[in-house]
Amino acid sequence: MRMNRPVHGGTNIAELRSLGLRTDDVLDFSASVNPLGAPRGMMQAMSRVNLAAYPDTECIALREALAARLGVSAAQILVGNGSTELIHLTARAYLDAGERAVIFTPSFGEYEAACRMQGARTLNIAASEATGFAWDIADAARQITEQSPSVAFLCNPNNPTGRYMSADDVRRVADALPDGGLLLLDEAYLPFVEAQWNSLPLLDLGNVALLRSMTKDYALTALRLGYMLAPPDVARHVRAYQYSWSVNGLAQAAGIAALADGGHARNGRNAARAAKRYLTDELDALGLRYTPSDANFVLVKVGNAGALRHTLLKRHRIGVRDCASFGLPEYIRIGMRTLNDCKRLVAALREVLENRD
Amino acid sequence: MRMNRPVHGGTNIAELRSLGLRTDDVLDFSASVNPLGAPRGMMQAMSRVNLAAYPDTECIALREALAARLGVSAAQILVGNGSTELIHLTARAYLDAGERAVIFTPSFGEYEAACRMQGARTLNIAASEATGFAWDIADAARQITEQSPSVAFLCNPNNPTGRYMSADDVRRVADALPDGGLLLLDEAYLPFVEAQWNSLPLLDLGNVALLRSMTKDYALTALRLGYMLAPPDVARHVRAYQYSWSVNGLAQAAGIAALADGGHARNGRNAARAAKRYLTDELDALGLRYTPSDANFVLVKVGNAGALRHTLLKRHRIGVRDCASFGLPEYIRIGMRTLNDCKRLVAALREVLENRD
Repeated sequence: MRMNRPVHGGTNIAELRSLGLRTDDVLDFSASVNPLGAPRGMMQAMSRVNLAAYPDTECIALREALAARLGVSAAQILVGNGSTELIHLTARAYLDAGERAVIFTPSFGEYEAACRMQGARTLNIAASEATGFAWDIADAARQITEQSPSVAFLCNPNNPTGRYMSADDVRRVADALPDGGLLLLDEAYLPFVEAQWNSLPLLDLGNVALLRSMTKDYALTALRLGYMLAPPDVARHVRAYQYSWSVNGLAQAAGIAALADGGHARNGRNAARAAKRYLTDELDALGLRYTPSDANFVLVKVGNAGALRHTLLKRHRIGVRDCASFGLPEYIRIGMRTLNDCKRLVAALREVLENRD
Repeated sequence: MRMNRPVHGGTNIAELRSLGLRTDDVLDFSASVNPLGAPRGMMQAMSRVNLAAYPDTECIALREALAARLGVSAAQILVGNGSTELIHLTARAYLDAGERAVIFTPSFGEYEAACRMQGARTLNIAASEATGFAWDIADAARQITEQSPSVAFLCNPNNPTGRYMSADDVRRVADALPDGGLLLLDEAYLPFVEAQWNSLPLLDLGNVALLRSMTKDYALTALRLGYMLAPPDVARHVRAYQYSWSVNGLAQAAGIAALADGGHARNGRNAARAAKRYLTDELDALGLRYTPSDANFVLVKVGNAGALRHTLLKRHRIGVRDCASFGLPEYIRIGMRTLNDCKRLVAALREVLENRD
């Protein structure tokens, strides 16, 4: 079997090199993380880790810290090498070759990649531009009942559209699954939503796992850190496919230290909100259409997204996410940064649009 | 499918806690890494990494540094989140359910775990105590020809026996494989071998991949870092199963910085050699039998290894590797540390043996 790995439309080293740029030269809006960066004290926390020692393969201390903060048991938590590892482990644990998976699209490319690696058949439940990328839940539930998938992947709020599904609608999706099926609800961007509903009661359904990331709200992106909240038997089943020591020791230490900084995620949400308000006002002024987003990014219709992305990078050293790999070649995704950074982006966008053929 | 994850017989947090100990309280001989620890400057190199940025999923800079050092091309290098990730990726890429794998045993438990996760059938080619854990290569080649496995896993020098197979014998193993089969030669402990032969020419055979670790010679154990050297088509095929961003950014930065410290691995080998000479002399004096080892650990016959390990931990705060999970319940594995640390171990061993029932 020969496969292609998923393409992500962010900045990549090879392209930067071809332009004579280094990563540090670029103001990067292609990642969507806390505009304030990582909490203070991360390097200090990591400097206490003995580099020569194996990481705790059970991640006990981090799981206990998460359990205490969230009010769940440590047995309901599985820590991963980024939430991406947990997506792939879930696919391995729940999908055999030829089995069906449902993916709510457009969305994060790793769901499809993980299913493909398993040789599973995927059905996309696609939301269209015409509905502002909202799904028709009655139709989705009907398709799930018909297809009887082993797993459904749903990102909430969704990447890249920023759509935030209601608790009722998520329950209808879960209810439509067959016995033994699992809904993986990816909440990587949840900490940036203003009007959150509490998803923890979904764990009582028995067939829902929540995926959380610490690379967005705590901006521990370089370290890779995510976790799954799930019924203990689901967590155990998924974990059976995790190789030993997959979560590095510095990520575990930084994660514990980050959790102790209670205000950081909230401050990041506030910073992202201010940036989003500013940016959407300016997009209005520029005459660019965007999708209303509950997350810390906006999906903007620009025409030829690949060309715009390249021009912004080459001429202004600014990176944005070209959404061709999401099946949206006319859109870019902009992750919120500080207000000042957003001002630079707006000035650059204005310049490029004015000089576009 | 319900599986058990592999058990590793090193120190683990749950056991330490039951004894009222923390990781830092224990002098740990259960890991086998550079006695000098990580090179200097690792924290400094890592502090230059932007935590909020995604790691380079292609690991370009590290692969180029490795390529320059080893005289291979970057296309022959696949970097992993520890060599353990690469073992599991190889199993995924080369083993479908029901296919056969050969494992030279006793050896590292993740080979078996990786095969089991794929639903593959494993054949162990076992070396026995009677031959000092040397394999009968003619018999091994015959079995491989008969079984026609998709992959053969061979650790050289072998963990936990320290046996170092000759270039000719490794070639005989590779030659016995069927078309399309792969020999994964795990050289995690190679940097500690005094009389190394050059394994790079094996890459020309087309069916051999070399597995290297940077968590042993450079003691970047907490960070997770390893790499595979392989023909480009093999590297590409294995990489197709690697999820995005699996190798964290701090490990990549530390790896590049470590490679620049050319003398560190050699100094570690010298320190391990001095420790091994001292320790084996003392084991002789204590009347304990051990297997001649070309690596930075020794396999010691002690009787009830589990009980000895527990007593050393509880009474002396010293950790050793109980080898029950290797199928060797009468053995412990001792990883080399500094001479002073080894003196503490010998004193503790003497005390425990004198007071043993």
